[in-house]
Amino acid sequence: MSLADIYRPVKTDLDKVEQGLKEIATTAAPPLSELLTYTLQNGGKRLRPALTLLAGKFGRYDAPRLITMATAIELLHTATLVHDDIVDKSALRRSKPTVSRAWGENTALLLGDYLFAKAGRLAATTGNIRVVELFSETLMTISAGELKQAHATFDPRQARKEYFDWITSKTACLFAAATESGAILAKSPEGTITALREYGVNFGIAFQIVDDVLDFVGEETELGKPVGSDLSEGIATLPSILFVESHPDDSTVKDIIAGRRTEAVGAAIEKVRSSSAIHQCLDIASGFIARACRAIEPLPENSAKHSLVELARYIISRRK
Amino acid sequence: MSLADIYRPVKTDLDKVEQGLKEIATTAAPPLSELLTYTLQNGGKRLRPALTLLAGKFGRYDAPRLITMATAIELLHTATLVHDDIVDKSALRRSKPTVSRAWGENTALLLGDYLFAKAGRLAATTGNIRVVELFSETLMTISAGELKQAHATFDPRQARKEYFDWITSKTACLFAAATESGAILAKSPEGTITALREYGVNFGIAFQIVDDVLDFVGEETELGKPVGSDLSEGIATLPSILFVESHPDDSTVKDIIAGRRTEAVGAAIEKVRSSSAIHQCLDIASGFIARACRAIEPLPENSAKHSLVELARYIISRRK
Repeated sequence: MSLADIYRPVKTDLDKVEQGLKEIATTAAPPLSELLTYTLQNGGKRLRPALTLLAGKFGRYDAPRLITMATAIELLHTATLVHDDIVDKSALRRSKPTVSRAWGENTALLLGDYLFAKAGRLAATTGNIRVVELFSETLMTISAGELKQAHATFDPRQARKEYFDWITSKTACLFAAATESGAILAKSPEGTITALREYGVNFGIAFQIVDDVLDFVGEETELGKPVGSDLSEGIATLPSILFVESHPDDSTVKDIIAGRRTEAVGAAIEKVRSSSAIHQCLDIASGFIARACRAIEPLPENSAKHSLVELARYIISRRK
Repeated sequence: MSLADIYRPVKTDLDKVEQGLKEIATTAAPPLSELLTYTLQNGGKRLRPALTLLAGKFGRYDAPRLITMATAIELLHTATLVHDDIVDKSALRRSKPTVSRAWGENTALLLGDYLFAKAGRLAATTGNIRVVELFSETLMTISAGELKQAHATFDPRQARKEYFDWITSKTACLFAAATESGAILAKSPEGTITALREYGVNFGIAFQIVDDVLDFVGEETELGKPVGSDLSEGIATLPSILFVESHPDDSTVKDIIAGRRTEAVGAAIEKVRSSSAIHQCLDIASGFIARACRAIEPLPENSAKHSLVELARYIISRRK
């Protein structure tokens, strides 16, 4: 199923989110307008706002509030990307120079702050204190997780657990906020809210694992950034962690993560890429997708539920 | 009047704000706990939380909500300082290395994000959507203002206007949010809310002018950073702007702001410091203090009103 087919139950409102993002950019004064246009018209898949809208279909679907919240979630996501690209010193995102590379780190820092604030302002526009609380907690979790990660040292025995903690806070938490906020705004019963949050967390973990696999096996033209960029930067993701676990005597990958060697990075990427770690990762991701789908099994059958199941399948098989 | 005397009407609750800030640091997990202790136990004057509490005295004083909001305002202030120190590449704040200098820019960036989020979370705890909106708008104004400033070029004919725009967005806006949120949470009538906001804006403008004067005439030991640091970094503040206005043929100061010369910075600082621009600045600041006091004149007489008037006088005569 294509993404357009999957999005069908919420297409009209997702178009309104897109329109809202465009208006945020065009109604701002310079230099913000140009920066917002650059960051918000980025050809992203809009997964998170789509999830908020779909999650709203299991209660009293409140279009204005759901559209507003979906827009807030996408802005929060964009803000974290802009700041991440500073932290990671990334040059490219979706084949375009990052804001920090094109305009400098100071501009990227302040733009990220503005996006956080604008996202918070939109969340408040829903008039629902619970989603505002959820919104703030999500950003607390993301930044605390990144801080922990920035101060961590690689230990192969702890690496797998730390990886799951990290991707839960940096990625899954925001997907969970996307679905949970949709369910809250639709005034769904607590069981439904929990089920949709559970879907979001597991979906998000699977999404990040697939992202980390694609960083090794994807095509540079589709990824919009060089292959193996995580390992090149010394970042341990699941493929390298599983490789190190199953090759305890091979120090190529370990040394790069530990920052001891950098010249052999091409060889290390190739080793991980051609190892069984890739398949293991995809198996693990499939397990999380299964859990995501199981979480929403008790919910009533409707087209949104069908889309959530298909979207979970889609992100496992995606190429970018 | 000493600051302790001025704070007397809200002393107990301001102590609770201080206690709350301490608990936020001690209850966090590492590495956050250490970073939060370092940034929050900074010997600051706690002007903004004091203003929130004092503003709450003109309505139904709701201690728990006011204390929570006052804490949120101080966290928001701290977050902006942490990010500012990255943007300005500042080495010292209140005689201690800045977070970005001591732990690196990435840590400072993520810590600032966490502080924004925690501040937003506390604002939401008040359960009052209007103060959450105000909170987000304040951060939007601050970051948009800093972005504009970062992209501005110095033009002596525009400089004064641009300076007032800039300090209104970076400083006065947060003081206004401090007093306005206190008034909102006390469920004051709209006229009282407007009056207290007006007080906050004018107080904030005066505060920043005095700050910029102290940067020239203060003592390094009291400032906790080198004298003339703004001009050294090429930042045009009111003292240099007024100096340039009244010495159109003297290029010493102008050249440093325009980044054309840096070797003569000591001489330029001395020129501004010994010029009449300093007194002119203090006169202008006194004008804003008078406006702040006039704004709250119609409010009922009580000890909080007396404190607001004394606080306005205090910040004009302060040495640090």
